[in-house]
Amino acid sequence: MWSETEVARRLGVQYPIIQAGMAGGPASPELAAAVSEAGGLGTLGGGYWTGEQLRDAVRTVRRLTDRPFAVNLFAPEPYEVSAEKISRVQERMRPYQYELGLSEPPFPKQFAPSFEEQMEVVLEERVPVFSFTFGMLEAEWMQALKERDIVVIGTATTVREAVALEQSGVDMVVAQAFEAGGHRGTFLSRFEEALIGGMALIPAMVDAVRIPVIAAGGIMDGRGIAAAFMLGAQGVQLGTAFLTCRESGAHTLHQQAVLSATEESTTLTRAFSGKPARGIRNRFIEEMADVEVPDYPVQNALTREIRQVAGKAGRSEFLSMWAGQGTRLSREMTAEALLEALVRETEEAVGRLAQGVR
Amino acid sequence: MWSETEVARRLGVQYPIIQAGMAGGPASPELAAAVSEAGGLGTLGGGYWTGEQLRDAVRTVRRLTDRPFAVNLFAPEPYEVSAEKISRVQERMRPYQYELGLSEPPFPKQFAPSFEEQMEVVLEERVPVFSFTFGMLEAEWMQALKERDIVVIGTATTVREAVALEQSGVDMVVAQAFEAGGHRGTFLSRFEEALIGGMALIPAMVDAVRIPVIAAGGIMDGRGIAAAFMLGAQGVQLGTAFLTCRESGAHTLHQQAVLSATEESTTLTRAFSGKPARGIRNRFIEEMADVEVPDYPVQNALTREIRQVAGKAGRSEFLSMWAGQGTRLSREMTAEALLEALVRETEEAVGRLAQGVR
Repeated sequence: MWSETEVARRLGVQYPIIQAGMAGGPASPELAAAVSEAGGLGTLGGGYWTGEQLRDAVRTVRRLTDRPFAVNLFAPEPYEVSAEKISRVQERMRPYQYELGLSEPPFPKQFAPSFEEQMEVVLEERVPVFSFTFGMLEAEWMQALKERDIVVIGTATTVREAVALEQSGVDMVVAQAFEAGGHRGTFLSRFEEALIGGMALIPAMVDAVRIPVIAAGGIMDGRGIAAAFMLGAQGVQLGTAFLTCRESGAHTLHQQAVLSATEESTTLTRAFSGKPARGIRNRFIEEMADVEVPDYPVQNALTREIRQVAGKAGRSEFLSMWAGQGTRLSREMTAEALLEALVRETEEAVGRLAQGVR
Repeated sequence: MWSETEVARRLGVQYPIIQAGMAGGPASPELAAAVSEAGGLGTLGGGYWTGEQLRDAVRTVRRLTDRPFAVNLFAPEPYEVSAEKISRVQERMRPYQYELGLSEPPFPKQFAPSFEEQMEVVLEERVPVFSFTFGMLEAEWMQALKERDIVVIGTATTVREAVALEQSGVDMVVAQAFEAGGHRGTFLSRFEEALIGGMALIPAMVDAVRIPVIAAGGIMDGRGIAAAFMLGAQGVQLGTAFLTCRESGAHTLHQQAVLSATEESTTLTRAFSGKPARGIRNRFIEEMADVEVPDYPVQNALTREIRQVAGKAGRSEFLSMWAGQGTRLSREMTAEALLEALVRETEEAVGRLAQGVR
């Protein structure tokens, strides 16, 4: 029943179940390959990688699997570099640097890797699927992707964003609901106005566009997948559910935090990167809550060393532990076992209801 | 298939579809009776009524239908009466009173009607179903309700709240998700930490309690109902969807605002009542956003005259227009036609998926 779905057909996968492109480690080549091998669509979270790192990751995936996979990147957006905000936030983070034994960090040479270099790799390597978030793609990139038959997936947090993405030529759109972990993809509204729960967002988006909608946010098991399909989605994207898989590149402390979190554990924060994102509440988020941090990706660059050193030192209070609201349902298994469970549970949920609404 | 559900059986209704107890007008006797007549469970939104007003409403419903219905009330909770906060907020609202031609309002004699008087009516009238929100019920009330075979439904915004309500003896629990319109029912957490989207909240709550879970928040059509059932809910509660029905007691301006709203139109505000609630953004909400208002029900009493006079004057910028995030799917019809559509759409959605996940 799965392979008939339009999303599965277009992506060339068995199940329209996409592993989200959790940048910064979790969405590693090993995880992406394992998900694709198991019949879903694995994704490389390439947002923070240089072109060279991305090329290595793409080639690693290809050594591990012949199946389709995706690369996910961050669409560039304008940002302000305010010396005043930077010095104020540096001041506030000094005690943490001291606590972690860091010397005063050098001012970052570059805030984010070159999107042009990343895109050249995507095009040269002819990756099967390209997904992106944080905005729209310039027309030249879209055309170059289409010429290479690369399936293009955008990310929308509102109906208006989905319509704009459809007009720009994407093949499918991810409906990123309020429940979702990680960075908000909002690009046409103030982020506070684009926090829409999946039960409301998915059917409204399905009604407004002709391209397939992929539901994302809080989906952790087959019940969630079946619900997303009922709402009209034709595919699902799961991040947090795959983050605790054996093959995930997420830090062990991050995985443990997700496994023990409740639905009340996460919050939206700008503290780590300058862009609102959902993660597990910790000391850094709480203590930085009153600071007006610089825009993304400036703040992201400024906190990078703290996060890296904290990771090595096993200090989870300084890690950005992105997670969605579905953490109570997280489980520790291989990607293959998780995908098998998701498929079985979805079929069970649908079968149960088809016999009569309980 | 519907009548087999545990919720439908316990409530004595054909469909486990509950019309929410939207207090302050929308959940009128006419609406409740029409929903119950059509096979769902109508609810009287009695939170702001005196015992006498509640009795009149119960008797009106009984004149209009022989079928089961519910009364919804607000569980009393401790609150602070701060003369300083009151005078500060009165100061800020003075220009609105002036604009509406109001003289300086007398200090309210009573902030909220007597819960004891309301409960005596519920017990004396032996209403078939009693639902409540904002907290737990004292053991004496619970016992009195049980002795009269009244089905008791609590409201939870987190798993912890659902577990506490189950332990207190409720027969069913409403899972009020982030998407929901009107007041947040949160009573064990800070409200900001209890904003959980339905896709995450519903299955987590279903796993944690043995009593049936009724899904609420963003459900507007049969797709939403089918999704809620997939997530494990055994019933649904819809507020916004019924608010625009012909029989609804909602102000015409409120109905029109809901019919033309998008998923980005609502926000959470304390401005009208002192308690966080989701409603359509308007001038009052925006201009009062920076004011630290007194606790519920103090602020509610202080804004009452403004809201009433604004309603008569057709000034929607001063009305509390509660609504959930599903407004794009709202429609104008009779309660009977809406219930018929909901049932048909749910069966269609389930049937579509049973033939194979699209």
